[in-house]
Amino acid sequence: MLPWSSVDFWNDRSYFSGMSKGNATRERIIDQALRTASRDGLNGLSIGSLATDLGLSKSGLFAHFGSKDELQVEVLRTAGERYRIQVMEDAFKSPRGQPRIERWFQNWMRWQQNPGMPGGCVFVTAAVELDDQSGPAHDFLVAGQKSLADALVTAAKQAVDEGHFRSNLDCNQFAFEMWGILLAYNHAARLLHSPAATALANTAFGRLIASSQSSRA
Amino acid sequence: MLPWSSVDFWNDRSYFSGMSKGNATRERIIDQALRTASRDGLNGLSIGSLATDLGLSKSGLFAHFGSKDELQVEVLRTAGERYRIQVMEDAFKSPRGQPRIERWFQNWMRWQQNPGMPGGCVFVTAAVELDDQSGPAHDFLVAGQKSLADALVTAAKQAVDEGHFRSNLDCNQFAFEMWGILLAYNHAARLLHSPAATALANTAFGRLIASSQSSRA
Repeated sequence: MLPWSSVDFWNDRSYFSGMSKGNATRERIIDQALRTASRDGLNGLSIGSLATDLGLSKSGLFAHFGSKDELQVEVLRTAGERYRIQVMEDAFKSPRGQPRIERWFQNWMRWQQNPGMPGGCVFVTAAVELDDQSGPAHDFLVAGQKSLADALVTAAKQAVDEGHFRSNLDCNQFAFEMWGILLAYNHAARLLHSPAATALANTAFGRLIASSQSSRA
Repeated sequence: MLPWSSVDFWNDRSYFSGMSKGNATRERIIDQALRTASRDGLNGLSIGSLATDLGLSKSGLFAHFGSKDELQVEVLRTAGERYRIQVMEDAFKSPRGQPRIERWFQNWMRWQQNPGMPGGCVFVTAAVELDDQSGPAHDFLVAGQKSLADALVTAAKQAVDEGHFRSNLDCNQFAFEMWGILLAYNHAARLLHSPAATALANTAFGRLIASSQSSRA
């Protein structure tokens, strides 16, 4: 059920391959819902306003999503899918280890400026919004964020195996610090509109990489 | 108008000194509004539900806050006031330089578990919620967060002056990275309920301090 596990990916892709009219409508709904959620949060999604935005009837929209819970989960699933393709799959074109992690980081920064999410990364929004809530969207989000953290730890371990990173590196620590840089970047770029945000994030990441490297690297 | 400037502090304190019944009610309203906003966001504040929660009439509540905008700003102002007292003023009891910054960091981590904000730091919530909005609450928040960033940069500069940090330290970079660690801590502790969150944050901060120190320190 993790949005970036490869098994889930191929299952989810069935939405898009051989797409029927119903599936195209469904995709259009999710696309608009993701835009709205990135600005107003998942709780800001309303089936009524979505229907108006898309020129659909409320009942037509309900035919695709039986409940707001289901719509919220589908928004997160779609965003996870796009993250996996745009950020991770692309990074996996670089060799294992440090080059892959560096590309991942750059892709992740770009992801936060994704035009499909005009209000910024929906996961950053949802993390703050859903942390005190319970329900399917919360559970889906937490599973996805844990899975992403695990994937980062694995990538760091691979960098150790490749001899890029030092053998005594705490890979959980590395993942935590990389994540923090991306959250600080989001805050500086989106809220403060700091023109230095990208440079600050790149310098911080460069320091993290340098302190993680083995003497051989 | 920055919530943690000392001038503003003494002005704001006039709410609480020689407190009349009206002021006590006003304080009780803000207190409850802050609790709610920390969980549901500033947009989740409703004058109607606040009145119900507090056993007040809606018109009684309106007598204190003419608009939702005003209430949102007062919530942020009160939170800023508490942050300044609990986090910064306390840290300022430690000597300038590294000891003060270390205490600031510890206070900030504790702040994020503040019982007056059961849904976590209201600034983290508001930063994500208001980044795409305009209006008085957005402007107040941005001014306050910039002021906080400036105060951190100043504290780092003092640590350079004291000889604790190296003279070529980029103090903006230091503030950015310290902020990122606190955001990562918030994410790991509040969303993922990671038992390692505190240790990860402390280790990251220790690395940041060590890499900032002068060879004399």
